[in-house]
Amino acid sequence: MTGALQDIATPALIVDLDVLEANLEAMATMTDQLGVALRPHAKTHKCAEIARRQIERGAVGLSVATLGEAEVFADGGIDDLFIAFPLWADHARAARLGALGTRARRLLVGVDSAQGARALGRALSSTEGAGALIELDCGHHRSGVAPDATPEIARALSSAGLELAGVFTFPGHSYAPGAGAAAARDEAAALERSIEVLQACGFDPTIRSGGSTPSVPHTRPGVNEVRPGVYALNDAQQVALGTCAEADVALSALATVVSVYHDRIVLDAGSKVLGTDRPPWLEGHGLVRDRAGLSVSALSEHHAVVALSPDRTPPGLRVGDRVRVIPNHVCNAVNLVDELLVVRADALIDRWPVDARGQNS
Amino acid sequence: MTGALQDIATPALIVDLDVLEANLEAMATMTDQLGVALRPHAKTHKCAEIARRQIERGAVGLSVATLGEAEVFADGGIDDLFIAFPLWADHARAARLGALGTRARRLLVGVDSAQGARALGRALSSTEGAGALIELDCGHHRSGVAPDATPEIARALSSAGLELAGVFTFPGHSYAPGAGAAAARDEAAALERSIEVLQACGFDPTIRSGGSTPSVPHTRPGVNEVRPGVYALNDAQQVALGTCAEADVALSALATVVSVYHDRIVLDAGSKVLGTDRPPWLEGHGLVRDRAGLSVSALSEHHAVVALSPDRTPPGLRVGDRVRVIPNHVCNAVNLVDELLVVRADALIDRWPVDARGQNS
Repeated sequence: MTGALQDIATPALIVDLDVLEANLEAMATMTDQLGVALRPHAKTHKCAEIARRQIERGAVGLSVATLGEAEVFADGGIDDLFIAFPLWADHARAARLGALGTRARRLLVGVDSAQGARALGRALSSTEGAGALIELDCGHHRSGVAPDATPEIARALSSAGLELAGVFTFPGHSYAPGAGAAAARDEAAALERSIEVLQACGFDPTIRSGGSTPSVPHTRPGVNEVRPGVYALNDAQQVALGTCAEADVALSALATVVSVYHDRIVLDAGSKVLGTDRPPWLEGHGLVRDRAGLSVSALSEHHAVVALSPDRTPPGLRVGDRVRVIPNHVCNAVNLVDELLVVRADALIDRWPVDARGQNS
Repeated sequence: MTGALQDIATPALIVDLDVLEANLEAMATMTDQLGVALRPHAKTHKCAEIARRQIERGAVGLSVATLGEAEVFADGGIDDLFIAFPLWADHARAARLGALGTRARRLLVGVDSAQGARALGRALSSTEGAGALIELDCGHHRSGVAPDATPEIARALSSAGLELAGVFTFPGHSYAPGAGAAAARDEAAALERSIEVLQACGFDPTIRSGGSTPSVPHTRPGVNEVRPGVYALNDAQQVALGTCAEADVALSALATVVSVYHDRIVLDAGSKVLGTDRPPWLEGHGLVRDRAGLSVSALSEHHAVVALSPDRTPPGLRVGDRVRVIPNHVCNAVNLVDELLVVRADALIDRWPVDARGQNS
């Protein structure tokens, strides 16, 4: 159903198509100028309609977080997929990987241990176009090995008969104010060091993959592929980090004002549509769009409380009015809904399914 | 599909049926002894199978947070429903309320403004069994009016031809260590005061509803109905609050160890299956079940990092091993999955759909 925004039941996630397309265009141009391949992370939007637009603008393929996401995007016609996660290929997952490998032109999988490499080899050694990327820890301290530990994994892949296609790292410590450039330096240093030690052992992987939305603008030589995700839609975190302006945020939750008090208003968009992410450096649980200074001060599952400052003119909102709330972290918000409502100039023009919603395994 | 737990793809949410049933039984007994009606909040489990078990054990009906949840539970055979939220009955929602009212024996809706009361009246005044409960703020400062402000809303309901069925309040400030008893006192005081002022104006609503999982054991005279939700499944918040023991938690995320380092292990259960809730008084992002002292120290969308203390014996976990993680807040975790895997003595015996997942509007 398309039509007027006023007919949409709230809360609902809406995507401003013009802003989305401008964001896709800007990242395609930026990575082109940087001379790096773009492999957008689809865990942000989980939506084949958006993935196809990224590929049309020159993305070399998609990054995903789970095997389930990879399967869904293969169904959606994307044939070059990188599961950027140290997948444990148990018996059932090995069978799924093998089946997916026959459908994808290129299937890449992350690995950060020799055990993981052997299991992946059992699953994919006979699959054409399959390969692994070793994950490096460049400072985020999540998964990923130190660069000097890569040869052991490379040898395990080699013994298991699986191509070492590259190395990758997630500079997650770029998610703090002013941290993008330093994280990009750490990323480049880790990737370069791993290539040095791997080459010294006779390996020469092609892909050197990094990049998160806040660090991509600072990408340094030595990196030849990046995996930003959030940039397509943006969110309150990116506004706070200065990666984008409020006008560059393509996704928001349409919400209804349900209560108005002297010190607060209450909206019907809670954590079950906005998500609960809030890093220590971020004030509030979401921004009220086009209402400078209004943000969500407290969030329950179905209520967003917007505290009103006694020093400011009241926003003049009444029960039944509608506002748009920008979530703090768009990736978790999108995963809460079955469809994105696509709008242009306040008209509802399309509905896109969140194809990979809930595909965690 | 039923069978061995080992065959379940991780991450997945599993429910221990024996623990669930013991929790349902314990709350039924407690409310019976307190002499209050139990109307469990179904936003926690969103699952008709669990709702029916609550009704079988004597619950008078269900509480829900949204009209969409109410519709789903009506489909599931529950005919006494309270939407405990100050719903704004716009045109589309009024039509849905009217349709639901013809299917439910009893349909109750929250209200906290005269405008809201008039809109509800337009939607439901001709529906048999429909009524409204005025929401009070007893200290949580979310939605709800002060007790002295209830007569204006009662008069608006009366003019609009809708029954004033009761008053209700959510003592959300019970969610802090040691706060349950004080919140229960505030709850009783607000409910009693509202009854006083309403009776002085010629109104005499029947239902006086309060209760959250941490405050129910402290319920005071004057309250005659309670709406706890979390108690059915429990979570790490309840363990931290002392409301339950770890053994009383019925739900956990089955997860696979994907990386092992000297200072941490990494699991494949991230915020997209555990949720991101973490109140300031709670350490960590989830508890590793049956592994005293292990908790999730950092959470990404698809990774849970469990920091290892240098002072403790390493847990001996290896890549490929499986553990169970107790989410901080079960309501948001359940809303992330399509089904709950029901286990008894480590055997998968059933799969229950999360019928109302994503029903935000």
